[in-house]
Parts: sequence; C-alpha cells; structure tokens
Amino acid sequence: MSQPATKTAEPVLLRHDRDSIATLTLNRGPQRNALSEALMAALTDELALIAKDPDVRVVVIAANGPAFSAGHDLKEMTAHRTDADRGRAYFEKLMKQCSTLMQAIVRLPKPVIARVHGIATAAGCQLVASCDLAVAADTVKFATPGVNIGLFCSTPMVALSRNVHRKHAMEMLLTGDMIDASRAAQIGLINKAVPVEQLDDAVWGIARDIASKSAHTLAIGKEAFYIQLEKGLSEAYDYASEVMVKNMLARDAEEGISAFIEKREPTWEDR
Amino acid sequence: MSQPATKTAEPVLLRHDRDSIATLTLNRGPQRNALSEALMAALTDELALIAKDPDVRVVVIAANGPAFSAGHDLKEMTAHRTDADRGRAYFEKLMKQCSTLMQAIVRLPKPVIARVHGIATAAGCQLVASCDLAVAADTVKFATPGVNIGLFCSTPMVALSRNVHRKHAMEMLLTGDMIDASRAAQIGLINKAVPVEQLDDAVWGIARDIASKSAHTLAIGKEAFYIQLEKGLSEAYDYASEVMVKNMLARDAEEGISAFIEKREPTWEDR
Amino acid sequence: MSQPATKTAEPVLLRHDRDSIATLTLNRGPQRNALSEALMAALTDELALIAKDPDVRVVVIAANGPAFSAGHDLKEMTAHRTDADRGRAYFEKLMKQCSTLMQAIVRLPKPVIARVHGIATAAGCQLVASCDLAVAADTVKFATPGVNIGLFCSTPMVALSRNVHRKHAMEMLLTGDMIDASRAAQIGLINKAVPVEQLDDAVWGIARDIASKSAHTLAIGKEAFYIQLEKGLSEAYDYASEVMVKNMLARDAEEGISAFIEKREPTWEDR
Repeated sequence: MSQPATKTAEPVLLRHDRDSIATLTLNRGPQRNALSEALMAALTDELALIAKDPDVRVVVIAANGPAFSAGHDLKEMTAHRTDADRGRAYFEKLMKQCSTLMQAIVRLPKPVIARVHGIATAAGCQLVASCDLAVAADTVKFATPGVNIGLFCSTPMVALSRNVHRKHAMEMLLTGDMIDASRAAQIGLINKAVPVEQLDDAVWGIARDIASKSAHTLAIGKEAFYIQLEKGLSEAYDYASEVMVKNMLARDAEEGISAFIEKREPTWEDR
Repeated sequence: MSQPATKTAEPVLLRHDRDSIATLTLNRGPQRNALSEALMAALTDELALIAKDPDVRVVVIAANGPAFSAGHDLKEMTAHRTDADRGRAYFEKLMKQCSTLMQAIVRLPKPVIARVHGIATAAGCQLVASCDLAVAADTVKFATPGVNIGLFCSTPMVALSRNVHRKHAMEMLLTGDMIDASRAAQIGLINKAVPVEQLDDAVWGIARDIASKSAHTLAIGKEAFYIQLEKGLSEAYDYASEVMVKNMLARDAEEGISAFIEKREPTWEDR
Repeated sequence: MSQPATKTAEPVLLRHDRDSIATLTLNRGPQRNALSEALMAALTDELALIAKDPDVRVVVIAANGPAFSAGHDLKEMTAHRTDADRGRAYFEKLMKQCSTLMQAIVRLPKPVIARVHGIATAAGCQLVASCDLAVAADTVKFATPGVNIGLFCSTPMVALSRNVHRKHAMEMLLTGDMIDASRAAQIGLINKAVPVEQLDDAVWGIARDIASKSAHTLAIGKEAFYIQLEKGLSEAYDYASEVMVKNMLARDAEEGISAFIEKREPTWEDR
C-alpha cells in the first residue's frame, strides 16, 4: 500500500502525549489552519479518544505555521455553492460539525488549554474562546471579522459572548477589527498574554500544574462548572451541593483531605 | 400656520442623516435631556422609522447641552402624584414607555452607538448601557443615583447589570456614586473613553467603519447576538448555526466571500 | 449558672452594631475562621435576626485572626467518614447548610459588605463572592484550592462564576492558585483593594454612605437586582417596571424626590 514515489500527505492534526498532557497541533500551516471538514473531524475524533484515555489528564490545543487558526475554510465552503441546493445541506452539516467540536471541548472531562502563538480569527477565535483556559503570545491578534465578508460571526459569538462583556463582544463582532493579546487578556477572552519566548513555559507550567491534580476531581469539577452556569442561583446550589457530596465520598477526596491534614503529598487513584 | 411672532418650540429630538448614519440628538439641554414622555416618544418613533429606512445603516445617539441625560423627568413624574390614583397609572405607562424604548434600541436591526459627551445618570445611564456600543469623553461621569432620592434605579439596572460584573453594578446602584469614564470603560459599561476633542472622530470612525459593512449582515448578526445570549450553550449553538446557514445563502455573503477570495472590494446589495 | 473557675468558650461569631451598621465578625481565628457547623449556624441565625431588625441598615462581614476564612472545617468533615454511611448524610446536611447561608446573604433585604483583611479560600472565597460588595486589604490573597485536595470547589464556584468571567473563574478553580487582591479587584471578585491601614475607612465609608439611604428603597432594589438577573431581557423589564411603580408609590420615594426638587435633605420613614 505504500507509495514511496509520492509524497505522503501531512496529517491535518498532530497528537503528542507527554507527562499526561496531550497536545493536539493544528497542522494546516500553509492554509493558516483553516478549520476544514477534515481538520474538524480529526479534532473531534481525537477529543473522543482522549475523553476515554486514562493516560491523558490535560489537553493543549496548539498550531503549526504562522497563524493559530483563520477560521472556516472559505474555499471549501464556496465550492459547494454549485450544489443543487446552493450548498444549504453542506453548510448545515458544516455548522453542525463545528458546533459539535466546540461543545466537545466544553464537555470533555479534562481541562483544555489553548496555546495561541499566532492570529486567531472567526472560528479560530471561537476555538480559543471555547477552551477552558487560553494563553497567548503577546504578539497575537484576535478578531471575529466575518462581518467584513458579509458573513457575521454568529457561531463564534456564542463562545465569545460567554467569555467577555457584551459591549466588548459587540465591538469585535460589528467592526471585525483585530484586538491584540493584551486587550484580549483584559476583557477575558484569554487568561494571559506573555512574550512569545515564554509561551511554552507559561502553557506547560499551567498544564503540568493541572495534570498533577486528581483527574477524577477535575472531571467532576469541569462538568459541574458549565452545568451550574446555566442555572438560576438556587438550582445551581442544589446541583453543586449534590456534586460536592459525591466528590467528598470519592476516594481521591478522602485521600487528598487526609494527605492535607497529615501534611503529606496525596496519591491519586489514577496515578 | 406659521406664527412668526411666537418663538417656535425647539423639538425635543433632532435627527441628522449623513453617510448612511442617522444621528439622533437629545435636545432638551436646559433640562439636562431628562427623558420626558415627549422625548421618549420621539426617540421610539424615530427608531421605528429608522428600522425601515434603507438609507440608514448605523445610528448614533448624541445629546445637546452640558449633560448627556439625567434620566427621567422628575418634575413631570411628581406632577402626577395628585392624580386620583396617586400616579400609579401614569407611572405604569411611563415605565412601559421607557422599557419599550430601551428594548427598541436592542431590537433595532442596525447598530446603535452612544456618543456620550456629558453626564449620564439613571435612565440616562441605562440609555448608554442599552446601546450596542458607547464611546464617551473622558470627562464624563456615570451614575445610577436613584437610591439617593428613595427610588432605586431598578429599570436602569436591567441594562447596567447586563453590561458589567455584578459587584460593579451593585456598587453603583447601592451607593449612587458617580464613576468616571475611565472606570466605565474598565468595567464594560462603555467601549472607550477619549479626550473630548477626539470624541467625534472616535464615534464617527466606528460609525463609518460599521456603515461600510453589509446592512443585511449587520441586521442578522445583531438580532442573533441578543437572542443567543439568553439561551443555554447547546440551544445557542443550534440557533446560531441556523442563522449562519441563512446568512451563507444570502446574496451579501456570497458576494463578500467571493470578493475576499478574489481580493477585491465587495459591493453590498443595499448599496 | 456562671462558672468563674472555667474559661468561657469564645463565641464563634461576634456581632457589634453601630450607626445602623451590624458587623458580624467570624471569631475562630486560631482555626482560620473555618466555616464549622457552629459558625455557619451562628451566621445564618444572626442574618435572620438582622433581616427583621429595623435598626440595622447595612451588614459588614469581618473576621478576627490572620485569615478571613479558610473555608469548610476539614477536620469536622473528616470525622464523619466513620459514620455508618461514610458521612453522606452529614455532608448533605453541611452542603445544604452552607448553600442556605450563602443564599441568605443574597436574599437579605439589606446590603452586605465583606471586609476582607486576610486570606479567603474555598468557602471563604465563596463568602466574599456572595456578599453584595467586598473591600479587601491589598495584601489579601484569594483561592479556590479544593482541587489540590481532591475536592473541587463546586459550591464556591456557584458564587465565583457569577462574579467573574468564566476563564478567570476556571483558572482559579483548575489550578487552585492564589490570586492577590489587586487581581481580584481587576476581575470583579471584589470592589477594591486598599492598603490595610485604610481598610476600615474604606469599608466604613461605603457602609455609612449606604446606611444613609432609605432602608425601604435598599430592600426593594437589592431584591430586584438578583431576581431580574435571572430573567431574559423582556421579562426583566416587565418585572423591574413593576418594582419601579411600587417604589414610586412608596413614601420614601415621594419624600426623596420632593427633597431633591426642593434642594433639601430627605427624611426617611425608618429614621
């Protein structure tokens, strides 16, 4: 099956595991990591594998090439304008695929950190907004520029508007203008901006720190976070109280609290 | 019909259209642009006209006189205390009128920018909070001071608390204290504060930029923004995905994306 | 009944009223003001009394000892692991008690200000987040470190995530790391950080200011604030409009507005 004379196509997504941290690297650098069908499918599939992989405790989403991600693949989309239905079925499928991917990040029972080294626009900005945490090089710029090409960033704004205040979101959405990493950190789109040469240390510092916690506890907490956010205060407390009780009765809380009282390092069940 | 010997009453609201931007100017300067029944009615009526006016792409709300707006007209309200029902019916009508106005701004299918050159308090602060974007002179102060006169700013807080974090909103509401424009920008009540001599350039820069986009796309996006904000994540994605598909199939997205791929300026349908 | 030979146990909570301001002081300094059952019960009971006490207009929550509060009492909790049900019933009771206390602060018809002079972690951080306002010494640190001991801060996050943007909340929850008071002010967890020697002036300045308002108006406004936050925009306006009408018809609004128009000091009904 091998074709030595033909250059093997580069995979659109790379995965590298180390120290219980899985790094998923968008690998369509020449296409500015546009989220083609193939790339979104690869990301979604890999996240599904990681969800069940006991050796992975934290996920980092990174990218090769100058850009982090320029969003959807406009050429791929435009090609379907000649479909019998002018592309409707294709666009529906694509939007469903994209929303499924973004929600897979939110639903993943492991923390996901965006490592943003280059520009993140439209669905690329949405990808950053969808991660639990994001660290960017201070040279990075972010935008939701769909309005400039007649296609408002309506799905990116679902994630964006849940990260930042509404006037800040509206400014990005209505103008399509770039904001720099420092502004992105200020408004809540990312956790922090660091000099590019410190980006790996910053991301890996957080990733290793989180990877040292109980994976069971992280899974409980992350799930509960997003669920309680959508409830009223009273319902949120009822729900979170149940979560706390379950968490208390789990082995890792017993071990963790004992270790804390005994002033020793805890040993987590999954380690 | 003209009465040359009598001084004609100044209209409470001025409208001036230029470059597809309609500027609505509150014109009760001597009354600090208090939102009298007449002024609220004029604003609501004008917004209804603008909603259907194909020549308007962006709205700027500005004001004459030293203040932007001091909120409701307390003298007008107090006069109704002598009504048979102590003013109840009047207050109900007034609150309904005010809420209708504020929501008309949010529902307007065109972006609305507040140009805030002077103090904005109570319902005047609510007016700023209700706009999609707001730019203020750095000398401006904002407050929700109703608590000082025994009338908590309960309707202004609907808009305020959807702009800023709750402790920031509560501080303004419980103390009634003024915050300056720089603080307002920091907490999310406005987009930015600029020196007063740069206010027009800042507002017009944003307004012209937005006016250069597809009006159809802006209408789709603005409507979707506020609708999706009130949904849970999964429902928001289902809804926004439908919006994206409709947007993709519209003429301006096809033109915009083609122009982008062909590296030329797009020509919007409504231009 | 007095036992002069025995050292009387210190009460876990102190209350001191002055100038219509009730200060509740957590008094388990040696235990870093861990929220034991007894302390939570004392706080809840005292808040219930204060709710009906016409002489109290504002509540300050303060603490003795080096810490503000280190959260739940882990030793008390761990002791129940030997219960027949491994502590389940106890943990359920404890979580219910804690959630009831936090909501009692939110539902209290009087503003509550946290005076944070020392570290506030886990449920101690939740206590700060649950107050309407919070002022901290600039030396204070905040954390939700449950993840470090295998017990995710799931109930603290209900309050935390309603104060700050989600990436900021997630960073605290997933890493368990401390943030300093300046960062806490920046992200919205507290209103401001001041040098420790100015803490009392800052807290008392705000408390006295708020205590000078109409208690009736404060009660109306605070209740309406949290209720309208959980509604969609249109429902929030309908609700807040009703609140405004009731408020307008109340004696203190009539007095406050008249005093304002007549340029004199108002006299509130409850003074």
